Amino acid sequence: MSMLGQVTIVGVGLIGGSLARALKAAGQAERIVGAGRSEQSLVRARQLGVVDAYDTDIGAAVRGADVVVVCVPLGAMRAVFEALRPAVGPDTVITDAGSAKGSVVSDALAVFGEIPPGLVPGHPIAGTERSGVDASFAELFRERRVILTPLPQTRRDAVETAAAMWRDTGAEVVEMSVDHHDEILAATSHLPHMLAYGLVDTLSRWEGAGEIFEFAAGGFRDFTRIASSDPVMWRDICIANRGALLYALQRYRDDLDALIGMVARGDAERIETVFRDAKSTRDRFVQRLGSGEPSGE
Amino acid sequence: MSMLGQVTIVGVGLIGGSLARALKAAGQAERIVGAGRSEQSLVRARQLGVVDAYDTDIGAAVRGADVVVVCVPLGAMRAVFEALRPAVGPDTVITDAGSAKGSVVSDALAVFGEIPPGLVPGHPIAGTERSGVDASFAELFRERRVILTPLPQTRRDAVETAAAMWRDTGAEVVEMSVDHHDEILAATSHLPHMLAYGLVDTLSRWEGAGEIFEFAAGGFRDFTRIASSDPVMWRDICIANRGALLYALQRYRDDLDALIGMVARGDAERIETVFRDAKSTRDRFVQRLGSGEPSGE
Repeated sequence: MSMLGQVTIVGVGLIGGSLARALKAAGQAERIVGAGRSEQSLVRARQLGVVDAYDTDIGAAVRGADVVVVCVPLGAMRAVFEALRPAVGPDTVITDAGSAKGSVVSDALAVFGEIPPGLVPGHPIAGTERSGVDASFAELFRERRVILTPLPQTRRDAVETAAAMWRDTGAEVVEMSVDHHDEILAATSHLPHMLAYGLVDTLSRWEGAGEIFEFAAGGFRDFTRIASSDPVMWRDICIANRGALLYALQRYRDDLDALIGMVARGDAERIETVFRDAKSTRDRFVQRLGSGEPSGE
Repeated sequence: MSMLGQVTIVGVGLIGGSLARALKAAGQAERIVGAGRSEQSLVRARQLGVVDAYDTDIGAAVRGADVVVVCVPLGAMRAVFEALRPAVGPDTVITDAGSAKGSVVSDALAVFGEIPPGLVPGHPIAGTERSGVDASFAELFRERRVILTPLPQTRRDAVETAAAMWRDTGAEVVEMSVDHHDEILAATSHLPHMLAYGLVDTLSRWEGAGEIFEFAAGGFRDFTRIASSDPVMWRDICIANRGALLYALQRYRDDLDALIGMVARGDAERIETVFRDAKSTRDRFVQRLGSGEPSGE
């Protein structure tokens, strides 16, 4: 579909590394350059053949790039924009993989003084609880959604270039507004992460916590898998998407209070209704997702 | 280890069916009889070779049994005890697989007027979100814990018989008090189930709920897997273990309030500490559990 010249990926971790691998596998980029602060990670990415070249100087790494993809924690976004500003041309497509989009737009505005016409904020809905280039794999985005949130100032051809790049990884690309993205992701991703981190936190301070975990089973392991995610990345998401996340947290807390009330009153009928409806909603969701449950556990 | 004569399993679903299969695989029971209300399930269990015989009359099914294992939702426990009371002898070992133990002891007291000396309340810490005999498999209990909560009135040889039976399935048997069991399980199992059901419930009432679920990814699927569990079984657990569950829910809610406060204040440092500690606790737990994460998503 799209044959790109140079793609520079700033932050070659799980997401950046998987994007690089997928573009290589698709043969859709002439040259992939890695950039980032950690020379060690970049050396490793080069060893693994994930990137063709790398530079710890972001400005140097983006020079000559058709597309720059910023795959760093949201808290590092602004500094990366500062570093790449002198090096990008008017035709450079700049996109990112941040889990919140409003903060990325604010950072771009603060650094560039306007929305660069090549800026296409993006978010691949994919990931695992692991991090780092060693955890990256070319199939990460296959049959996953990538949300692009272009702004009125964004050039249409920039959107098309970014969309084609993501399609080359096997993803399905959809567009929506920045605010809508941030609300939806707060509910379906950021909220569950808070709840899972919160549960492990609660139990780790329980009397006899060691024993508590000894009797936890597979359900607990699955429920808390996302609590093994990168703490810095998730800290940044909390701060970056604070408004939408607070709204989701408060709604959940209110519903939890209602459920606690039902348990306190022993209201078996209403409890069963909540559980039954939740089960049927989730079973439909899993069916639609089309990927089977892991067997056994 | 233990060669048993007749084992009668009341409720041949996921747990009862898996127990029957495991005992057959181990060659440790001469004859396995199924009992329960649903003739259809029992016919199916017989077809699958899970039981050697069955009876919808619980009294008839338990007659002659060395061990009776009651694997029904907690809300059905008392009625099952009523049905088996006239049919069990002083030597019959009666055990169960209920997820709360205090309510089972109360039900037994109410029905028998005293703790039967053959009563060994039990709980295998194993399961999947599926239900029914078709979901049962012989390996369900392998390397899992089974908790027995014998009472001062329980005969020691009854405990040993129940323990040997569970060991024959590949499980590790531990003993603890009824109250301690109920507190630990409220924290590690009942609480996460409430949170998962609650999250799906909250999101299903979100504006544009259909779209919300469309953008949910693998993390959400794993987090909510336990919300696909049997609603009747879990309703009964909420009622049966109400006290300990309320305590766990309230502790979680208080901690969640603290986390909401951190997000509201934008306290990045404390948020990161909570996430980092939770991640390291969970990573240690998974390591100790010794079973790898499912790969990829």
